[in-house]
Amino acid sequence: MAEAASDSEPNRPLVCNHCNRMEQAIGNRRLDFSVAAVLPAGGSGERMGTATPKQFCQVLQRPLISITLETFERVHWINDIVVVVSKQNFELMNLIIKRYGHSRTTVVEGALTRHQSIFNGLKAFVENQPCITWLQKPEVVIIHDAVRPFVEEDMLFHVATAAKECGAAGAIRPLVSTVVATNPESYLDHSLERAKYRASEMPQAFTFDVIYRAYQQCTDYDFEYGTECLHLALKYCGISARLIDGPPDLWKVTYKRDLYAAESIIKESLSKRVCIFTGIQEEPVQLGRLLQEALQKLMEVDVLNWSENKESRCIQTISSGQYYNFVCINVNNFELSQEIVKLLELIENRKLSVLYPVVLTVVHLNNLETSSPCVQMEDFISIKELAKEANRKNILIFRLLLNYTQELDKVEESVKEAASIIDSLIKQRSPALIGHFLVV
Amino acid sequence: MAEAASDSEPNRPLVCNHCNRMEQAIGNRRLDFSVAAVLPAGGSGERMGTATPKQFCQVLQRPLISITLETFERVHWINDIVVVVSKQNFELMNLIIKRYGHSRTTVVEGALTRHQSIFNGLKAFVENQPCITWLQKPEVVIIHDAVRPFVEEDMLFHVATAAKECGAAGAIRPLVSTVVATNPESYLDHSLERAKYRASEMPQAFTFDVIYRAYQQCTDYDFEYGTECLHLALKYCGISARLIDGPPDLWKVTYKRDLYAAESIIKESLSKRVCIFTGIQEEPVQLGRLLQEALQKLMEVDVLNWSENKESRCIQTISSGQYYNFVCINVNNFELSQEIVKLLELIENRKLSVLYPVVLTVVHLNNLETSSPCVQMEDFISIKELAKEANRKNILIFRLLLNYTQELDKVEESVKEAASIIDSLIKQRSPALIGHFLVV
Repeated sequence: MAEAASDSEPNRPLVCNHCNRMEQAIGNRRLDFSVAAVLPAGGSGERMGTATPKQFCQVLQRPLISITLETFERVHWINDIVVVVSKQNFELMNLIIKRYGHSRTTVVEGALTRHQSIFNGLKAFVENQPCITWLQKPEVVIIHDAVRPFVEEDMLFHVATAAKECGAAGAIRPLVSTVVATNPESYLDHSLERAKYRASEMPQAFTFDVIYRAYQQCTDYDFEYGTECLHLALKYCGISARLIDGPPDLWKVTYKRDLYAAESIIKESLSKRVCIFTGIQEEPVQLGRLLQEALQKLMEVDVLNWSENKESRCIQTISSGQYYNFVCINVNNFELSQEIVKLLELIENRKLSVLYPVVLTVVHLNNLETSSPCVQMEDFISIKELAKEANRKNILIFRLLLNYTQELDKVEESVKEAASIIDSLIKQRSPALIGHFLVV
Repeated sequence: MAEAASDSEPNRPLVCNHCNRMEQAIGNRRLDFSVAAVLPAGGSGERMGTATPKQFCQVLQRPLISITLETFERVHWINDIVVVVSKQNFELMNLIIKRYGHSRTTVVEGALTRHQSIFNGLKAFVENQPCITWLQKPEVVIIHDAVRPFVEEDMLFHVATAAKECGAAGAIRPLVSTVVATNPESYLDHSLERAKYRASEMPQAFTFDVIYRAYQQCTDYDFEYGTECLHLALKYCGISARLIDGPPDLWKVTYKRDLYAAESIIKESLSKRVCIFTGIQEEPVQLGRLLQEALQKLMEVDVLNWSENKESRCIQTISSGQYYNFVCINVNNFELSQEIVKLLELIENRKLSVLYPVVLTVVHLNNLETSSPCVQMEDFISIKELAKEANRKNILIFRLLLNYTQELDKVEESVKEAASIIDSLIKQRSPALIGHFLVV
């Protein structure tokens, strides 16, 4: 997910933009104060034009909010995550948490407005409530939208530390459009000088006492019409927030097109590397190698040989969670080999496909010169049921029949085509194509 | 494209939002004044993080700017379209215009800043310049970003008529984020009350004389740092622009994720309907009908029968430009039938695939009980070259082998699977899969 996040900055530097010092690698950061997060998710998604509120819309068959929660749960220095949802989505949210294993997340019931919902989320840390008494009041609380799934640890770290220092901090971005003031008759009154203003985005962070005190003093008007926590901290606690330039990936999923974009970003990130399992020892070993080389031009490739590598190494590779794509190369065998069945079991046991669909492409090499020139139709449709069963577990099995002869030119072309098909199957992740043979 | 445009408002009402009267259908509008458009496209695309400026980035293998130009050329009451590009992209832009047939578009060389480029575009209507002396000065000029491809005729109509009435008009949108003012130390100074401000978007329109006069008076500072034409009209001509609420589809392609979104929107729009060609008369006619019914659950379907319908009707359907997807149903025949070859010729002759990739899915029905249980491998790879040739003309040929028996349950399931595969092939439009058989 780290790669997916950085929309226009695919490789963010390890040197921190804000304090100009070398960062510790992600995952090694230590904070000497406690941090929790509150994610308001009570919105109705009117702008999306769909019946489902946007935080519950599906991205790769998973609710958007689960992707945001995954991002937060990867950050080990955030102790607790509170997600605030409307009463009618309370049960749904608990189901999502259970299904996707969001073990550090607590669901709290929201209220009618965004500010009231955030306040409810904060109360969960200080007021004894049924079922959630184990939440400890943190020193700093991060507030983030459930519909901004691609925030990076880097950014969370900066708002949290700036909040600890200044009491309040928030991410800002340059304005994309000029801001204009209108008169009551819908004519231009004046336009703002773009350089002097910024868009206030999320995440924001506060020392818990500052934001809690601010909410305690809020008027009904604030609760009803206010949109900005930073404003409340200034108004009621006199705390002027530290503003931190954020990357473009802080963007908020607002319209249907944003769901398309989110899905494409995740698919791109999932398609960056593939692990090839091969057991080929004899004649077509060269072909397997050609395929591997062709794939290497399209993505990062790791190769494991079932017979050469110890099983423990294979298990380790699968368990690492680095790969969501596997290619298995078979020779002249239309059944799935023992190795493939074992691989499927491993993917399932290691719960690799709980969060994202895993692609397993089985390539059958077929020597047109030595094999029968005709294929039993039954062979083509033999594993359909198995593929359907795997699909229910979020594992997509695709099958490729790669015909070859001794003519080197043709072989190279076929291999290039096969690699391009595998690349496409991995990038598209289309459940419609599972189990069916593609013949090259 | 009309459908693609309305991101969260798929069916925009024919009753006008702005003047509360019934609109004439698109295409029938008449204006009693002349209108032209200027599209500044000189940007360097820094925010995109790519070497290619965003207006030249590919969306479904076509430069984004060509999609915007297509939108404008569909509006018959816009006489001339001037696109302003930097010197180094002048030749490229002319090639794009030629390749995609943008016959009403003229290319003008831009300058260092956005405002200077727009001014250059305007000058093309009043100053004699080599090669472009045929441009007539319009009464109203619409200014629009080349990277906002999904603007609708409706919106263009409103800014043009409002500009004719008031001298200047522009589209606005609600602010997505709160706008904050920062102090020089990057702390929050104050936040703006969101309800009082709007984001100024494109299109904007002006009477030609107003905007031309404004530019003639511009200072170097205006040219260098200004971003807003509406502001110039106010400052130099005292014209307060009429501001018109625009739909969300006015959004600007700014980041890589926006390219993903644009591509998804177009793909969705292209996938809404399919035309099925069938010549089946005998036994599997029922199967063809089942497939048709299954597809109807996924998209709009029109059916033409080569033998029943006159050829002129088929030609008419293809020429209508309503269909970018065709399905041909074949029986037990792995060669492409004469009809399919003719269809391919028609698609090419009618230039249907110039702007968007056309999908042609050939479905071969195979009765497992009467046909040979084994298939010659050669049959599977017989049309690869033809598919590659078609792909060069932007026609994607996919092939599906649909096996069936007399068992009704199994037939229904297979047909459902086939429909879902066709749907996926149409939606993804992946050139990697062309020419290869998919076996169901």
